[in-house]
Amino acid sequence: MDAWGKRLAGVRGVLLDISGVLMDSGDGGGVPIAGSVEAVARLKQSRLKVRFCTNESQKSRGKLVGLLRQLGFDVSEGEVTAPAPAACQILKERGLRPHLLVHDGVRSEFDQVDTSNPNCVLIADAGDGFSYRNVNKAFQVLMELEKPVLISLGSGRYFKETSGLMLDVGAYMKALEYACGIKAEVVGKPSPEFFKSALQELGVQANQAIMIGDDIVGDVGGAQRCGMRALQVRTGKFRPSDERHPEVKADGYVDNLAEAVDLLLQHADK
Amino acid sequence: MDAWGKRLAGVRGVLLDISGVLMDSGDGGGVPIAGSVEAVARLKQSRLKVRFCTNESQKSRGKLVGLLRQLGFDVSEGEVTAPAPAACQILKERGLRPHLLVHDGVRSEFDQVDTSNPNCVLIADAGDGFSYRNVNKAFQVLMELEKPVLISLGSGRYFKETSGLMLDVGAYMKALEYACGIKAEVVGKPSPEFFKSALQELGVQANQAIMIGDDIVGDVGGAQRCGMRALQVRTGKFRPSDERHPEVKADGYVDNLAEAVDLLLQHADK
Repeated sequence: MDAWGKRLAGVRGVLLDISGVLMDSGDGGGVPIAGSVEAVARLKQSRLKVRFCTNESQKSRGKLVGLLRQLGFDVSEGEVTAPAPAACQILKERGLRPHLLVHDGVRSEFDQVDTSNPNCVLIADAGDGFSYRNVNKAFQVLMELEKPVLISLGSGRYFKETSGLMLDVGAYMKALEYACGIKAEVVGKPSPEFFKSALQELGVQANQAIMIGDDIVGDVGGAQRCGMRALQVRTGKFRPSDERHPEVKADGYVDNLAEAVDLLLQHADK
Repeated sequence: MDAWGKRLAGVRGVLLDISGVLMDSGDGGGVPIAGSVEAVARLKQSRLKVRFCTNESQKSRGKLVGLLRQLGFDVSEGEVTAPAPAACQILKERGLRPHLLVHDGVRSEFDQVDTSNPNCVLIADAGDGFSYRNVNKAFQVLMELEKPVLISLGSGRYFKETSGLMLDVGAYMKALEYACGIKAEVVGKPSPEFFKSALQELGVQANQAIMIGDDIVGDVGGAQRCGMRALQVRTGKFRPSDERHPEVKADGYVDNLAEAVDLLLQHADK
């Protein structure tokens, strides 16, 4: 593999995944990953532009930022690209009235959305809300539509909580796709539209941006397909087999965000 | 389409699906589909061999037969091919110790199976047992195995209860396949092994047998791939779009089991 100097040359903006990179979620909120609070602070003091790009869909953006600040991170709502606000925009543009299968923590994002007489289903990481009864209700709504539309906030397979690996929304998206014989529309990583809007908000071109995430497919593969570079951290949901993934190869693998920031501050924007 | 005489010529044995053909399940047991009790009786009085071939995995075979007899059907346990007993045989042959994600009603089928220190996961139609917690536990067990083995009793997308369409085990099989990056082994229809053992128990060759079911893929497509003929009934989970299915075309579509039996008694075994 090329030296880091070559791999990071010309990087001017950084997109940071949150869960598994900044913090591990868990009961009672979460814990910062060692070195990440300082790493974010150093990055923000540098000449590099920084934006947070998350598929978090259990919490509203406000609650997520509140939690991060409580853990010591310097972050504000305006710096975060998250799927629920992006989905609200799409629902509005297309006149869609969703049946919501979402966590109570994110429901406030949809306060302004008409959910009467639903003509689509929107699912997010509902956690314990993914009861048989709730998933079946979403299935029944879809089966009653002439042209069923399923919108999924992300398509992650699983994420890591402090207590262990947890099924993510993607698993339930696949269950509904199979049961209804349809294909979901994903809002969030790895959707190119989502990365592009994060890039636009970051204010740099794709070839000047780098994504740092713990998900080899959703973060690394998705960003690379948009022309960005991407590093995978060995924290969060990282598993050693990710470094031998049959389809996706990161531009680099680092132990954690702190190491990524060390390398960026040394080699980027040169 | 050819006349019925040509389509049913030489049929000597009949495999009958149960749910959606004989009865619709529901709270409190289920209700027979109009004309099916008499249709089964007429079939059994004929020269045709008859066997029941079900993916029912919420109830033990004993409980299922008890329910059917209560509804007026002439059926005994020895006449039923069901996935749980077939799975027990496979577990034994391969030294597999399953983590069970199944309905309490079928748990007794696994009384003789070693479930300590699991080295595979077995899922069946667990109904309300498909809570997030339970599905996540099955996921975690799979992710901890070096070579994850997932056995699914059937791969149905949904079935029909008196209260409406209900998600079947296949949806949860797909969720776990996606989350773990694996492929499940299906025990039950449409697995060729399962049809072949039902045929062997029926005692006729594939080209002399016909399957009658309400599932265009699981019943009709599966049976045809084994060289059998297959009729779809317009009861149970049948939907009009099934008659325009892009991949599977039944040898005939009939309104219900009673019509299928009328035709069989008139044209089969000639």
